[in-house]
Amino acid sequence: MTLNPADDQFAQSIRAALPDEVLRPVTARYLEEPRRRISGQAGVLAVPRTAEEVAVLIRLAAEASVPVVPYGGGTGVVGGQVTSDGPAPLLISLERMTAIRAVYPTENVMIAEGGVILADVQAAAEGANRLFPLSLASQGSCRIGGNLSTNAGGVNVLRYGNARDLCLGLEAVLPSGEIWHGLSRLRKDNTGYDLRNLLIGAEGTLGIITAAALKLFPRPEAVGTAMVQVTSSEAAVDFLALARDLMGDSVSAFELIHQQGLLFLSEVLPDTRQAFAEPPEWSVLIEIGLSMGQSPETAFEVLYEAAEARGLVTDAVIAQSEAQRQDMWAVRERIPDANRLIGSVSSHDISVPISAIPEFIRRGADVVAALGPYRVNCFGHLGDGNLHYNVFPPNGHSRSEYDAESAKVKRAVHDLVHEFQGSVSAEHGIGRLKTEDLERYGDPVKLSAMRAIKSALDPKGIMNPGAVLRL
Amino acid sequence: MTLNPADDQFAQSIRAALPDEVLRPVTARYLEEPRRRISGQAGVLAVPRTAEEVAVLIRLAAEASVPVVPYGGGTGVVGGQVTSDGPAPLLISLERMTAIRAVYPTENVMIAEGGVILADVQAAAEGANRLFPLSLASQGSCRIGGNLSTNAGGVNVLRYGNARDLCLGLEAVLPSGEIWHGLSRLRKDNTGYDLRNLLIGAEGTLGIITAAALKLFPRPEAVGTAMVQVTSSEAAVDFLALARDLMGDSVSAFELIHQQGLLFLSEVLPDTRQAFAEPPEWSVLIEIGLSMGQSPETAFEVLYEAAEARGLVTDAVIAQSEAQRQDMWAVRERIPDANRLIGSVSSHDISVPISAIPEFIRRGADVVAALGPYRVNCFGHLGDGNLHYNVFPPNGHSRSEYDAESAKVKRAVHDLVHEFQGSVSAEHGIGRLKTEDLERYGDPVKLSAMRAIKSALDPKGIMNPGAVLRL
Repeated sequence: MTLNPADDQFAQSIRAALPDEVLRPVTARYLEEPRRRISGQAGVLAVPRTAEEVAVLIRLAAEASVPVVPYGGGTGVVGGQVTSDGPAPLLISLERMTAIRAVYPTENVMIAEGGVILADVQAAAEGANRLFPLSLASQGSCRIGGNLSTNAGGVNVLRYGNARDLCLGLEAVLPSGEIWHGLSRLRKDNTGYDLRNLLIGAEGTLGIITAAALKLFPRPEAVGTAMVQVTSSEAAVDFLALARDLMGDSVSAFELIHQQGLLFLSEVLPDTRQAFAEPPEWSVLIEIGLSMGQSPETAFEVLYEAAEARGLVTDAVIAQSEAQRQDMWAVRERIPDANRLIGSVSSHDISVPISAIPEFIRRGADVVAALGPYRVNCFGHLGDGNLHYNVFPPNGHSRSEYDAESAKVKRAVHDLVHEFQGSVSAEHGIGRLKTEDLERYGDPVKLSAMRAIKSALDPKGIMNPGAVLRL
Repeated sequence: MTLNPADDQFAQSIRAALPDEVLRPVTARYLEEPRRRISGQAGVLAVPRTAEEVAVLIRLAAEASVPVVPYGGGTGVVGGQVTSDGPAPLLISLERMTAIRAVYPTENVMIAEGGVILADVQAAAEGANRLFPLSLASQGSCRIGGNLSTNAGGVNVLRYGNARDLCLGLEAVLPSGEIWHGLSRLRKDNTGYDLRNLLIGAEGTLGIITAAALKLFPRPEAVGTAMVQVTSSEAAVDFLALARDLMGDSVSAFELIHQQGLLFLSEVLPDTRQAFAEPPEWSVLIEIGLSMGQSPETAFEVLYEAAEARGLVTDAVIAQSEAQRQDMWAVRERIPDANRLIGSVSSHDISVPISAIPEFIRRGADVVAALGPYRVNCFGHLGDGNLHYNVFPPNGHSRSEYDAESAKVKRAVHDLVHEFQGSVSAEHGIGRLKTEDLERYGDPVKLSAMRAIKSALDPKGIMNPGAVLRL
């Protein structure tokens, strides 16, 4: 399918159909992504205010066969929001669609437009004494439409699920330029195919999410947070199972932290307040949410004693205040910042079946060591089997010295993940940086079904071309 | 697309490719559905033992353009499993694919073949000290592949979600006859479109689910069950909100019961042990699952006092033994049996936004009364906004006298549901009995996307033709 650039003539067609302020100059921030692997092309930037305006834009793009790149908060790390290949695109940013249309506390539902910043969704839920549990490092700038389009994960997936699990319905503009009015507040609706989940995680290749009906939850009465030293990665997995046995689904976060990350923090972000004087080889950040007058301290004491009796843990610090809780989370959330300052040779957002994690970590260490004297920082959402597995140059060396090795390291780690029946993109998506990985490791029958669905819904291939499925 | 009947010649092609015992005579049970609205046609019946055999069958059907009807437990009530129109089909029953391939207790995952009976899935989970929460009246005969294909609901959706929320991955044969190997045990995997959720709820029109990776949960330490008299349907909704405020997501079931159902039980199933001497106008069956040494009695006492202070409740019975708990559930589970014995003019599986339920009940009573002196039995999964709204002839009259009125009643109730932004099939699916409703009330953009997806994945239209989308 031949596509045409979003040129002056195309911009003129938009000006003729929509108010002038819908078009804006394309500034640098729309052409960058956080890891600077791809530089986007400047085409035309539109900032619509309504689903109807989005629909007009998509219809014009479809008529002119102009590629469309949807833009949320711009925080994605796989290049789904920028394109350097093909004709210059129409960028559609949802930054002016920031209304929270309604909150229904008794139903535990909120209707938010696609451009609402995640932190604002959380705050609006809190204002209604409810919880919207999606929580991730970029929540101050990412937007809920993008979170849904990429099926974002984060730190509360263990208890509450991914973005897709937090959505009841969508309003979206399909590649035909038609608006699907699917903003259902229903918990149960078995009337036809699950178009909602097809759009969620499609990374803008099947349409643009203009609004969503989001699930809210009761706020736990009491939240407890602790940093716990575990004796090994096996012990971490067993400690997780024990915590879930004892506390049911009260465990909302369970983050694995390796010594390497704490050493990086000491090196490049030394003002970070760490829980332990000596960085332990393995530790976990655990958070629980309780109700009915239960005490987090008591719950942690019971858990710790049971874990100690099994030889799983050697020390723990329980947050005694919100400030201490914030400090613990800051350790976890700043590890990616420290990683960036150190500079990785290759970084991986992977998942494997939870019970296989210790063996994966062992095998991974061998695989990486066979390639060179690298340092590995492996951390993340253990409760979901999702690790950020990052490989760094030896102490005293910089990433640039290893540029030539990066692809080899990535391939070796991903091959191992595949051998473990894991995923090479657990929560970040495919974007444009992982399309080759998807082709290599993805199930061929699924890939061919995906291509058939893409062609059926977007026959001209205008929606975010090159993302998820290669051009 | 012209389809051909599954005739002797077609059976011969199966015999040539697969062992003899894969073919069996078509007996009456494969041609009936529980409500006897559709009589299926006898074509050819195949009972494969493996996904590979299913794939061979589908490839033969695709080559010969023979329609395929997948058959699980045969318990669906909308005719998805039987066809009376078009050429006689190849029936594929998964009754010999009943292996539980693996259980991973530390991962809370089970791999079960599509033909495993739901009660056997539950028992296998219990055997590993885990919970598989999907629970519905037909669990002794429905099969998990069918539960997933129809996105079954049941009594634990409030806490644990529908069937789709309980599935991590699928193995399925697509209409091309290719096997999609998607039996992921991963909690997070963002590599491409969500084919899993597309097949779940597609009612066999996009493929056959041959195995599933199912989510297990920790078993609650203590389960409490109570039958509570509420002062009105509004009070029931407020009582639900209060319970969730006080108990977080410990509330696993919240079933609304109307006096009419209890009167029907007294009339046609008088051995049912009811909780209250006088059937209250409205009552609810509430179940909670607790951990960490919490006592259900104490929890119910706290809840009841708070509800009584707000004027929501007037009496309650807490189950003191498993036998009493079973009695309470028997009341709820036998109401549909009583309904069948009385004989409804029209029955509806509907959902509306939870906060609108009291108004819907009021308006529904007016709408039905305007059509005739009917009795309404309205009951069900209040926590999910899902009511079974059934209309019966006046006392002393039989349903057959009102056959001519049935369509009018159905239309009036469904129109009202649509006005309330509800669903005319909350948990039963579309099958063949509700395709017209889907066309009338469904979003046209979604319908057109569904047709495009169906054509793309099943260009010959062999998979369960006439189900979900009309021929």
